[in-house]
Amino acid sequence: MKALPKAYFTEADSAEVVTGQNVNAKDARLKQVMEIITRHLHAAIKEIEPTQEEWMKAILYLTATGHKSDDWRQEFILLSDVLGVSMLVDAINSRRPKGASENTVLGPFHIGGTPEYEMGFNICLDGKGEDMVARGRVLDVDGNPLEGVKIDVWQANDEGFYDVQQKGIQPDFNLRGVFRTGADGTYWFKAVRPQHYSIPDDGPVGELLYALGRHPYRPAHLHYILSKEGYDEVTTHIFDPDDIYINNDAVFGVKESLIAEFVKVEDPAKIAEMGFEGPFYWDVKFDFVLAPKT
Amino acid sequence: MKALPKAYFTEADSAEVVTGQNVNAKDARLKQVMEIITRHLHAAIKEIEPTQEEWMKAILYLTATGHKSDDWRQEFILLSDVLGVSMLVDAINSRRPKGASENTVLGPFHIGGTPEYEMGFNICLDGKGEDMVARGRVLDVDGNPLEGVKIDVWQANDEGFYDVQQKGIQPDFNLRGVFRTGADGTYWFKAVRPQHYSIPDDGPVGELLYALGRHPYRPAHLHYILSKEGYDEVTTHIFDPDDIYINNDAVFGVKESLIAEFVKVEDPAKIAEMGFEGPFYWDVKFDFVLAPKT
Ligand SMILES: [Fe+2]
Ligand SMILES: [Fe+2]
Repeated sequence: MKALPKAYFTEADSAEVVTGQNVNAKDARLKQVMEIITRHLHAAIKEIEPTQEEWMKAILYLTATGHKSDDWRQEFILLSDVLGVSMLVDAINSRRPKGASENTVLGPFHIGGTPEYEMGFNICLDGKGEDMVARGRVLDVDGNPLEGVKIDVWQANDEGFYDVQQKGIQPDFNLRGVFRTGADGTYWFKAVRPQHYSIPDDGPVGELLYALGRHPYRPAHLHYILSKEGYDEVTTHIFDPDDIYINNDAVFGVKESLIAEFVKVEDPAKIAEMGFEGPFYWDVKFDFVLAPKT
Repeated sequence: MKALPKAYFTEADSAEVVTGQNVNAKDARLKQVMEIITRHLHAAIKEIEPTQEEWMKAILYLTATGHKSDDWRQEFILLSDVLGVSMLVDAINSRRPKGASENTVLGPFHIGGTPEYEMGFNICLDGKGEDMVARGRVLDVDGNPLEGVKIDVWQANDEGFYDVQQKGIQPDFNLRGVFRTGADGTYWFKAVRPQHYSIPDDGPVGELLYALGRHPYRPAHLHYILSKEGYDEVTTHIFDPDDIYINNDAVFGVKESLIAEFVKVEDPAKIAEMGFEGPFYWDVKFDFVLAPKT
């Protein structure tokens, strides 16, 4: 046990006075993390100069955020999301060589047990929405096609709901599928054009968004996890460029490289070839590039 | 409504991407506060580079801190306390000219309705503990005695408990009193020497303290609020210099200027003069200086 230094408080040395008391921390990483948090927290407070009332408002806001969280709802994750913290942590943990597909957040709607299908399968099990084909290639950083890549895909329906949000309304595993690339590295499947949706806005996070003049919407997207032994797993979305929220995702999930092409196909021959009934379908093209595991 | 800027996420510009979305905030102060919080939060995360597991641990820690809070327990205030944030906010809101008595945190044990007594009253209503006399003068910054200063004092007993923590064990308003200075600006009252005590350590805050090798104790102290029309109200403590925790208050309430003299008096004549039975009492001397209201 090291002797504790004197911790007489002064405004000027406030952070050092606090972290100076951690000399006996056994966990070096925790000590480091708390040193950084305390230093930035005190710097922020010195810049804000909150009144006592503002400080109490912050205390009560954090408390309400905790109280809103239960087994089904995680308001602190939502808060992390709308402050860009979730994206930042994801970015820090998924730095890749230039040209490799970028990550974005996993989101709360991924589930296990999704059936594996042959390429071309229509994962829309209830026929609701505008027909869509999603297709492209999975390549390595040198442009070679990658075989045996597991593609786990999930998306919201044409009303912006995932199957797990509408149990009994949507069929189980609606708009979810697992596919595996062949030797040519291509993938393709049928689905329906997803719609944008709101994150839960009936709690402290929604309150904050509205107070800041922000909205709670995420632009329409498809979720992907791409994995292959020896390669860095990619958890990402691809986005609809024409969505009205494409430029201001409430959780900042959009990266420029993840905006796909959504082309409206009205050619009857092509519609027939896909086995759709028309009068159009959406052709969504996006290539993925996997970086080797480091 | 201003048009929102594009908010495509990049690691480098993460904070600007987030705060750029606040262009339509109606409350300018909230906008400013969230800009500062977001910037420092992102800077801290970039310095920490948390793993996803560490980020989740932080989410669950904040959630548990919220869940621990109810009508009787405020774990986020405790967290603010042990991180020195409460003291910092207090310091920012109570800057005074040199020589004036410094503030420290109010703490959770102040109550209204405390009886007013004549100087010299013994506020220890149950006779438990080591006798003490607290005395001194209340002056203005020029050294003139201040008449009509209301002195609201409260303290823990010889076991480190406030009356409100031991309803039915201690008498109501035990070790609390209100006094008012006369023309000479002096005050004096009898009580018992307070003991150090632990902040609540059975929640997330206690867990953090122990993980950091810290303890949950506050050095022995008396609480004061001094108020007089036209003067800046002082909310403060005076501290026992011989307490084993004087150098490392768990909530950083100690300022060097607030350490009092605690002198053990064993002279039978003085003991008799005070009306004590001996074999000793503690003579606690502390002068307060009030600054004019600005
Ligand atoms: Fe989603
Ligand atoms: Fe206290």
